[in-house]
Amino acid sequence: MSTDPAPVPRVSREEFDALFAEVRTWGRWDPAGRGAWNRVTPAHVRRAAALVRDGTTVPLGRPWDTRPAPDNLRPALHHMTDLGDVEPPEPSAHKDFLGADYHGKSVSHLDALSHIAYRGELYGGRPARGWVGAGGARFGSVADLGPLVTRGVLLDLPAVLGAAWLEPGRAVRADDVLAAERTLGADIDEGCAVLLRTGRFRRRRERGPWDPDAASAGFHVDAVPLLAERGVSLLGSDGDSDLRPSPVEGLHSPVHTLALTAMGVPLLDNLDLEGLSTACAGAGRYAFLLVVTPLNVPGGTGSPVNPVAVL
Amino acid sequence: MSTDPAPVPRVSREEFDALFAEVRTWGRWDPAGRGAWNRVTPAHVRRAAALVRDGTTVPLGRPWDTRPAPDNLRPALHHMTDLGDVEPPEPSAHKDFLGADYHGKSVSHLDALSHIAYRGELYGGRPARGWVGAGGARFGSVADLGPLVTRGVLLDLPAVLGAAWLEPGRAVRADDVLAAERTLGADIDEGCAVLLRTGRFRRRRERGPWDPDAASAGFHVDAVPLLAERGVSLLGSDGDSDLRPSPVEGLHSPVHTLALTAMGVPLLDNLDLEGLSTACAGAGRYAFLLVVTPLNVPGGTGSPVNPVAVL
Amino acid sequence: MSTDPAPVPRVSREEFDALFAEVRTWGRWDPAGRGAWNRVTPAHVRRAAALVRDGTTVPLGRPWDTRPAPDNLRPALHHMTDLGDVEPPEPSAHKDFLGADYHGKSVSHLDALSHIAYRGELYGGRPARGWVGAGGARFGSVADLGPLVTRGVLLDLPAVLGAAWLEPGRAVRADDVLAAERTLGADIDEGCAVLLRTGRFRRRRERGPWDPDAASAGFHVDAVPLLAERGVSLLGSDGDSDLRPSPVEGLHSPVHTLALTAMGVPLLDNLDLEGLSTACAGAGRYAFLLVVTPLNVPGGTGSPVNPVAVL
Amino acid sequence: MSTDPAPVPRVSREEFDALFAEVRTWGRWDPAGRGAWNRVTPAHVRRAAALVRDGTTVPLGRPWDTRPAPDNLRPALHHMTDLGDVEPPEPSAHKDFLGADYHGKSVSHLDALSHIAYRGELYGGRPARGWVGAGGARFGSVADLGPLVTRGVLLDLPAVLGAAWLEPGRAVRADDVLAAERTLGADIDEGCAVLLRTGRFRRRRERGPWDPDAASAGFHVDAVPLLAERGVSLLGSDGDSDLRPSPVEGLHSPVHTLALTAMGVPLLDNLDLEGLSTACAGAGRYAFLLVVTPLNVPGGTGSPVNPVAVL
Repeated sequence: MSTDPAPVPRVSREEFDALFAEVRTWGRWDPAGRGAWNRVTPAHVRRAAALVRDGTTVPLGRPWDTRPAPDNLRPALHHMTDLGDVEPPEPSAHKDFLGADYHGKSVSHLDALSHIAYRGELYGGRPARGWVGAGGARFGSVADLGPLVTRGVLLDLPAVLGAAWLEPGRAVRADDVLAAERTLGADIDEGCAVLLRTGRFRRRRERGPWDPDAASAGFHVDAVPLLAERGVSLLGSDGDSDLRPSPVEGLHSPVHTLALTAMGVPLLDNLDLEGLSTACAGAGRYAFLLVVTPLNVPGGTGSPVNPVAVL
Repeated sequence: MSTDPAPVPRVSREEFDALFAEVRTWGRWDPAGRGAWNRVTPAHVRRAAALVRDGTTVPLGRPWDTRPAPDNLRPALHHMTDLGDVEPPEPSAHKDFLGADYHGKSVSHLDALSHIAYRGELYGGRPARGWVGAGGARFGSVADLGPLVTRGVLLDLPAVLGAAWLEPGRAVRADDVLAAERTLGADIDEGCAVLLRTGRFRRRRERGPWDPDAASAGFHVDAVPLLAERGVSLLGSDGDSDLRPSPVEGLHSPVHTLALTAMGVPLLDNLDLEGLSTACAGAGRYAFLLVVTPLNVPGGTGSPVNPVAVL
Repeated sequence: MSTDPAPVPRVSREEFDALFAEVRTWGRWDPAGRGAWNRVTPAHVRRAAALVRDGTTVPLGRPWDTRPAPDNLRPALHHMTDLGDVEPPEPSAHKDFLGADYHGKSVSHLDALSHIAYRGELYGGRPARGWVGAGGARFGSVADLGPLVTRGVLLDLPAVLGAAWLEPGRAVRADDVLAAERTLGADIDEGCAVLLRTGRFRRRRERGPWDPDAASAGFHVDAVPLLAERGVSLLGSDGDSDLRPSPVEGLHSPVHTLALTAMGVPLLDNLDLEGLSTACAGAGRYAFLLVVTPLNVPGGTGSPVNPVAVL
Repeated sequence: MSTDPAPVPRVSREEFDALFAEVRTWGRWDPAGRGAWNRVTPAHVRRAAALVRDGTTVPLGRPWDTRPAPDNLRPALHHMTDLGDVEPPEPSAHKDFLGADYHGKSVSHLDALSHIAYRGELYGGRPARGWVGAGGARFGSVADLGPLVTRGVLLDLPAVLGAAWLEPGRAVRADDVLAAERTLGADIDEGCAVLLRTGRFRRRRERGPWDPDAASAGFHVDAVPLLAERGVSLLGSDGDSDLRPSPVEGLHSPVHTLALTAMGVPLLDNLDLEGLSTACAGAGRYAFLLVVTPLNVPGGTGSPVNPVAVL
């Protein structure tokens, strides 16, 4: 196996729709808006906490980035609003404003179920037009999710392949997932969170930023049935989990569509997994306690986050 | 003991400054900008994870609030930026912008060490003017903190007193802290995070919002040496930990000053502790795993957060 | 006539719809998105410029207000982003960020034709759903309007009535408009901009802010046919031109609906007309050159403005 | 004369400081914060209004630009906040939020006197540190300026030179200004506003955007004494009036410094002067009524604007 892009099977819309139907979990859970996070029972939480052996904490959030770049088209805002000279001392207070149109390719963030609709429908079949408007999402909002505490697994593909990173456009296919499980000794099980490392931010530091919509390493849709069968609760990546160019006819984000809209599986995009890769390699373990605490935004379609892995 | 405000000792600036000198930890840690979070070693993390028994998760963040109120003078922003009609389908994407001048009395947030200066100095003695500017904080930023995984203790004062809440202006004094430890069976130890519940948000729901700068239940400064001696890593509250009106002459936020600037102890303000109170009462335990994951904002003086307690 | 609210005729939806049909100008102009600003020909501009006699300039924009109030539910933002310490000197630069959800009751602003739809239709009958989305308005945007240079007329009702202000809820009816024209010697003619002073900001300064949605002085719909017949290009007010409570069954902003959606007449809301009142009284003239220069926002439904009257 | 950059005299800091002292108007006006706008008396306003002959209006503001580019590093924000589904109908309302860190190279904006300090001092000698803070500017704010109604003169250099534009880096020197006056028949007189067209936006449309900090056509400082002697009230440009690379040793924006800090002359940056060029050529006149109406922002260092020329 190589880190380079190679020809991958093209997928027609009919084949995609069959896949969508195959992995669909609509109607399975209550509350529906939590989707696959309903898989994470108190027993899963206890088992995840029991994974802590070293007590090492590894944050996964990228730095808040206010400068435009090919992968940062809507730069975040950071404004100082008090420098000790607005409100009266003593003491003097320093304050700041944070703002972000966080979906995109820069901010580490969680996608809630309302983020994506396919053929006009949200997860569970609700029409998007009726449930998402200028006031926010009335179904599948990030406030419906709350925090996630579960077992995390790092699919460190560059480590598996002995490479610094996957080249943009490299597909991660079902076989790659199985090879990673085997090589890294980390099985994907019910309720776990799968984090896919492609080495994007190492490549970005060494080669500079590029447009991820043009070319990104990510899952080919043929890996999704495997993840669905194992019952994952969350997919995360240092990209956005989707392979680009998309292998699916007329569909720019097929993994987003399958995960969020068919399976009810939230996504974590733009994680910095470089530190976690080092930590896992050092510990010789690729499974850990993962904690994700999105902001409590009623009607929000997601949230900037800084998840933490605890080894 | 009562839940009502009662006369409390007034504290002169000289007495305060003596207290400041007494609890000061300047020079003790490296990196200095992490302050008391340096107390939380891997061993603390392991012991905190071992507190998980039920696998119950309780989020502590208030809903993002876009409406002005006496305790929300700078309402947060939540704008939908794509309703499936901006970027081309398929799939269609829903996106939103979040913005907040989050310090204040509404957003659940973490204060990093750079938030407060006393007599012009930040924690460790650096002059605020040289280290905090329009570009952000070059010392004591939230990016220096990273995540916190530690043992949390809920000082549920209303539960101790058999009341719904403490009235605004009620001081929480050293004796109250000792009584709470005893009654609730939760000792405050090295590296732990202390969360003070005053019942603010139950009162707000039943009585409506009020101006917390005029009257808030919070720690009297005479409780701080006890907390310092125990070596806490974090103070949090459903208010902002400070008693108001302030008992200290000419100082509006003396607990902020002692915690952040003298002791290097970050603060969590405006937590919703109602659910945690119920959960702790149900479990018969007031100590738990606490995870705080601030956004990774270089130069930020804090971050909106949604901490999670795991019982 | 009194400045106090008095019972006014209630208007049924059927009567309103008849009125809507009566004053409708759909199909009259090209480009349609400029609406009644198409009335202002170069000849009107020349005649307006010829009104300048004293050379006195009077700005009509309220101060940008960052503090919440009963009439400022979405306070404007003003953040300093450089205090000479972000970009390198010399020279040193001071910079700021301005932000506003400017529709509402505080910011002086212009409403473009896309701001309001009635029965799902914009001016000219286009369906709002197809023409306004998360990306902005594709018809009737403020960028379609451009600047307005025309004759302005101040209907200074408190001056007519010898009062400091109209009480909130006081209707301005067709008779009031005719009386103002007569008393002030300012006729409303083709292409002119009519500015209605109710004295709101004098009252606000003396009595404090109130909720204008509960009670505002403004035009009763029975004044609109007169304004339509005269061919006005713009309606402005120190309120938002609408009487509240609304006299029309089930319709909260009937004058907005008639002006923007039926007549294609943009609105200026929340002007400070106190200085203009003084200037007109001093000059003994209530007609002047008016210049309105909205920001050039493609897809914008309006713009914050600071119009200027030149006497 | 050519449109291409040519070697220009380098200016030492001593020479610059002598120039600064030569053109300085400190102490001349009251209120000082209006600077050279104090030159514009009612008589100037009347004469400016009398310039209107055709009744043609030409807006000078660029489109609000939300996309990053080499000349748009802090893209403006435009968010729809109501699409008829937030507040209850009827009628339905469409609303939007506008935000901009408007200083920079994209937004058409006015610089107030507080925008620039030289050697730590604002216009008039006030120390910047004491007068500009996180709460805004307490001297020289845009609210001190109010609107400007005066005679405008277009220095259409490409028209003078028979070219499409000046190449970035081309200096506009005193001789160029005199040649433009002569050729275009527009004299620069007391109180007038001088608008310098370099053809930037025609070049941008044909060649694409570039980094204006690296190379811009603009005034060489040797043109400034001439402008000072004539008593201009305002300098505007389709760039930001400054030549770049700067000819002055260690000073990136010498014309900003001379205009704002020495002379008290506000600046208009990033105007789109293409339409005005066409209109002036058509009318055979390069002088006109100019109206600038900045937003009324207390403490603001400037304002986005959309000035209008009336021919």
